[in-house]
Amino acid sequence: MTTAELAARLRREGEARYHHRHPFHLRMNAGDLAPDELRRWMANRWYYQTRIPIKDALIVSKSEDPAFRRVWRRRIVDHDGEREGEGGLADWERLAVAAGLPAEELRSCRGVLPGVRFACDAYVDLVRQRPLVEAVASSLTEFFSPDIMAKRIAAWEEHYPWVDGETLGYFRGRVTRAREDSREAIDFVLEHARTRSEQERCIDALIRKTEILWALLDAVDRAYPS
Amino acid sequence: MTTAELAARLRREGEARYHHRHPFHLRMNAGDLAPDELRRWMANRWYYQTRIPIKDALIVSKSEDPAFRRVWRRRIVDHDGEREGEGGLADWERLAVAAGLPAEELRSCRGVLPGVRFACDAYVDLVRQRPLVEAVASSLTEFFSPDIMAKRIAAWEEHYPWVDGETLGYFRGRVTRAREDSREAIDFVLEHARTRSEQERCIDALIRKTEILWALLDAVDRAYPS
Repeated sequence: MTTAELAARLRREGEARYHHRHPFHLRMNAGDLAPDELRRWMANRWYYQTRIPIKDALIVSKSEDPAFRRVWRRRIVDHDGEREGEGGLADWERLAVAAGLPAEELRSCRGVLPGVRFACDAYVDLVRQRPLVEAVASSLTEFFSPDIMAKRIAAWEEHYPWVDGETLGYFRGRVTRAREDSREAIDFVLEHARTRSEQERCIDALIRKTEILWALLDAVDRAYPS
Repeated sequence: MTTAELAARLRREGEARYHHRHPFHLRMNAGDLAPDELRRWMANRWYYQTRIPIKDALIVSKSEDPAFRRVWRRRIVDHDGEREGEGGLADWERLAVAAGLPAEELRSCRGVLPGVRFACDAYVDLVRQRPLVEAVASSLTEFFSPDIMAKRIAAWEEHYPWVDGETLGYFRGRVTRAREDSREAIDFVLEHARTRSEQERCIDALIRKTEILWALLDAVDRAYPS
């Protein structure tokens, strides 16, 4: 495949499977979630959020190039912050608290469903076990993230006004950040996946990642009523 | 063991095996190395230096605590820098060039001896495979690093004046940095290694690390003459 063909394939395969099409997500954006369901989503998605700096540190550890590591390191900073109370995890915590989920409850991961844990741990394993270029390719769901975030912000402001709109900062930040992140990642994949087999494995890594995000919502959607 | 007993054991076991006692190191500080031998050491120790940000990213990936990750992330920054030309690896490159080892030659790792590669890769494997507290314990050779660096700077200025003293910045920086780093690491180990068996495994990790540094010098010392 030429780099243009690979880029198009990645976009097509990712778009077809991205979790913006999941029934739970459609219900979220239509304003059909009860407060308990929204909180259940937040408590479970939180587990995914906590895996991000871990998988990004694994990606940093896979690179022999200080320049790449400097660029990717910024993603760890984006989630962990420069100091206590900063960064994406802290933003997410404020959002959860605004939705009525105490920070202690969130951090304890008590509400994390088994299927969510399986899916998120499978993501970290994928990144740990696969070569650097495939691990980077698995992050390309960020292609679709600015769009889903923009729609989510609008939907929440309209349908869930009981969640303080000031705390949607994490989603807002991701609109710009995910755009830059995905551009860096696609450039890297197009440059480093040269053989047909490497290219196919990169597509497979992205598909696997969309399956992980989808399975997370399956579990949230089909949880035993609490 | 009480924390005081564990701290004392770690210092004693580390001190007894640290590579400042290695014959090659004694010859270096006595001014007995030929320029080629000094360059051989630099080309090989470089491989160790390049493993540092990789093993530190692995350590970051093992922690569930953003506060710990923020602190440990600084070690990656120390070696990779904030931008091109900054950080410990860039300092080391300038030092090598000043000693007559072209940057390209250094970066290619062509001069890295098999035994050095085995030892350094074993270090990364140790960090990858062991629990966080043991991986942190393996870094405690930094206890002894400020002292060895201070002596090395004095010895190089005296015996190897053909290496521009301005380029000894990496060694100078480590005197302060290693002191802070080892304090953070020992505090973490004393807090998190609570059972006798965890404590013994931390001591074992530190001993293994001293063996790695020692084996590196064995290979440099006993290389086939080039």
